[in-house]
Amino acid sequence: MLLKGGTVLTPSGWKKQDVEIEGTVIKSVGPSSKSDDVIDCSNSLIMPAFCNMHTHVAMSIMRNVGEGLSLHDWLKKNIWPREEKLTREDIYYSSLLSSFEMLLSGTSCFNDMYWKFPEEIERAARDAGIRSVVSLDVALAKEPLKSVEGFVREGRATAVHSIYAGEEEAIIKMYELSQQKKVPFHIHIAETREELFISLKRYGKRPVEYLDSLGVLGPNTILAHSSWITVREMDMIAKSFSTIVHCPTSNLKLATGGICPLHEVQKRGVNITLATDGPASNNSQNMFETLKLAGLLQKHKYWDAKLGEPDKLLAFSSINGFKALSINAGTIEEGKEADIVVVERAPNLYPLNDPSTAIVYSADRANVSHVFVKGEHNIVDGKIREDKEQLLNDALSYVEKRAYELREL
Amino acid sequence: MLLKGGTVLTPSGWKKQDVEIEGTVIKSVGPSSKSDDVIDCSNSLIMPAFCNMHTHVAMSIMRNVGEGLSLHDWLKKNIWPREEKLTREDIYYSSLLSSFEMLLSGTSCFNDMYWKFPEEIERAARDAGIRSVVSLDVALAKEPLKSVEGFVREGRATAVHSIYAGEEEAIIKMYELSQQKKVPFHIHIAETREELFISLKRYGKRPVEYLDSLGVLGPNTILAHSSWITVREMDMIAKSFSTIVHCPTSNLKLATGGICPLHEVQKRGVNITLATDGPASNNSQNMFETLKLAGLLQKHKYWDAKLGEPDKLLAFSSINGFKALSINAGTIEEGKEADIVVVERAPNLYPLNDPSTAIVYSADRANVSHVFVKGEHNIVDGKIREDKEQLLNDALSYVEKRAYELREL
Repeated sequence: MLLKGGTVLTPSGWKKQDVEIEGTVIKSVGPSSKSDDVIDCSNSLIMPAFCNMHTHVAMSIMRNVGEGLSLHDWLKKNIWPREEKLTREDIYYSSLLSSFEMLLSGTSCFNDMYWKFPEEIERAARDAGIRSVVSLDVALAKEPLKSVEGFVREGRATAVHSIYAGEEEAIIKMYELSQQKKVPFHIHIAETREELFISLKRYGKRPVEYLDSLGVLGPNTILAHSSWITVREMDMIAKSFSTIVHCPTSNLKLATGGICPLHEVQKRGVNITLATDGPASNNSQNMFETLKLAGLLQKHKYWDAKLGEPDKLLAFSSINGFKALSINAGTIEEGKEADIVVVERAPNLYPLNDPSTAIVYSADRANVSHVFVKGEHNIVDGKIREDKEQLLNDALSYVEKRAYELREL
Repeated sequence: MLLKGGTVLTPSGWKKQDVEIEGTVIKSVGPSSKSDDVIDCSNSLIMPAFCNMHTHVAMSIMRNVGEGLSLHDWLKKNIWPREEKLTREDIYYSSLLSSFEMLLSGTSCFNDMYWKFPEEIERAARDAGIRSVVSLDVALAKEPLKSVEGFVREGRATAVHSIYAGEEEAIIKMYELSQQKKVPFHIHIAETREELFISLKRYGKRPVEYLDSLGVLGPNTILAHSSWITVREMDMIAKSFSTIVHCPTSNLKLATGGICPLHEVQKRGVNITLATDGPASNNSQNMFETLKLAGLLQKHKYWDAKLGEPDKLLAFSSINGFKALSINAGTIEEGKEADIVVVERAPNLYPLNDPSTAIVYSADRANVSHVFVKGEHNIVDGKIREDKEQLLNDALSYVEKRAYELREL
């Protein structure tokens, strides 16, 4: 497959190039004379697909339920009672729905955390044609730690919900297991003010300080949110080479009040990544929206219009995530796995004064025309590819009917 | 034209209805047996089109230029030198581009302020098929006040850039002219901290207090931004029946630090509206994005997840704007002018647990399938209608080429 004549985000900037994909990888970036299987990209920007680094895809069935309630009432009256009732099939179809939604908005990979049937989430991702790194949250699952060992393997992750929902033993065990199996260790941290108070009261330490004291920070550790962190904690994250996942929409949606200080952690060399968070607390799975909001919020937080630099945000949205998940994708270079999005220019992308700024501040998912996942051409002309259409329709009918039932239960 | 079987946002909530359009108006809302000219809306939501209440559409040619500069350098090095050079034709094509961008994202009307060739902006809007209320900003135009009188007529507005760029005499004269011609009076107010300091220093009053002291608040007055306002100023705005325009993306993009306290002004009964602001300070013209961000920012600002109520935001985005512009549109009711958007459900709008929440927090412009402007069917199946395609292509080529020239000048 040849992507012909597009403006390509290469490691050395935007360039007019041809991109050839062979099998699962990028065969070449540069002039090509290949004449079959060609997509004309002369009016398109070509860039690495997004890596959505923190979500709970199975929760799509609960999106837009209970809006206007306080966080506590929302969870207690709407989310938890429904979650209890979710069957294996519910998890599969809800995850399928989210997977398709992500593909349509240019995402080729997601990092998930859930407490029920994670293997169904993985199956849904595979069927939809998107990469996944799933984990079983042992804190909410209340599984014996021992029984989780069989679940964890290459391409999956270990997870503990948080320092308030998980026991110290679970946190340490899951981190050790992640070291042993060489997979990520995924945890929510420093998300809300309440968590901060609990941490100080229970452990006499701030959330990241507590993790540091347990010895569970490290290159495999993925810290979702990291909103309410001190300079001391930023240094701990940097020194340990842990990854931060910033989820701007979710932080605003749940009114947590905190915004990860990307500007300050970035100066310390931290591996920063971006995510939508789950569909119930966003309420979409669209990384274009996350990209723009992440930039806007840094400008707002520091009263500095120079922040929210597009090139940095693009790295956060792709390569940095793939790096944290040990996947050889996220840049458009020969030999890299072909996770690519083709962004077609429409009126919102005219004139093209600066491609990076245009992608971050003007583009949206309506511009997505093609998405490749490990070389597979899964979004074609802005649509789910034909052989998956039936599966998409099945997912839509299923969740629509089942969401109605869950309301009545 | 019959919109058949959609879920319609009526003044009494969402209902499965047929909507019949005849000429420029909504003929009926309710079961219809019409069988020709039917659009199947069984998988769609139908709602009033957006009214974008504050923009500078001619600035699209300068979007995504100078990102990463401070506000001052951005204006001085990138925006002002380009603006000086803009020709009549530049204004026409840039405005055409923005008009198409807005139509594609569900907007049927915009309220503009610019200092050069506003009649070209009006012509572009008419040619694209979108409503406009244009104004000539006398402060930046440096036009003799007398010469503006001929320009102002029904369907246009008067405008002064701001209390720091415009003279007291201009503000009073333009307000008087607006009263006399029964048109809106449009001004930027309380947008930045700098403006607040200037106002206190120069007039010994805060920005809205100053306007009040000049006697220029009133039902025709449209206050763009109103971010940095005190409770006392909120009361002045409420008592005078002035309209507020909240531009959340622009406020963040320019790092003004202030967010209009919608929650507090709403309690006072103020007519609140929403807008994108100009394409150079956003950098898109997409009201779906504005709608969601407006909601998210209220939650964030007040640390209260109950705010950002979808039904209120929907009113801000449409009916309240049309009301301020004295246009009989903005609700789906018999006899209203037919400004309608058909939102097609895709994976991001499944399941449909709550339509208002889904529109505000999950929908985006990729869901827009049809837009009617005063009964004219101007977006068809998500695309600019066929007879306008050539005009769109002309606009795209023109701005692309001209933006390049402006860089070189």
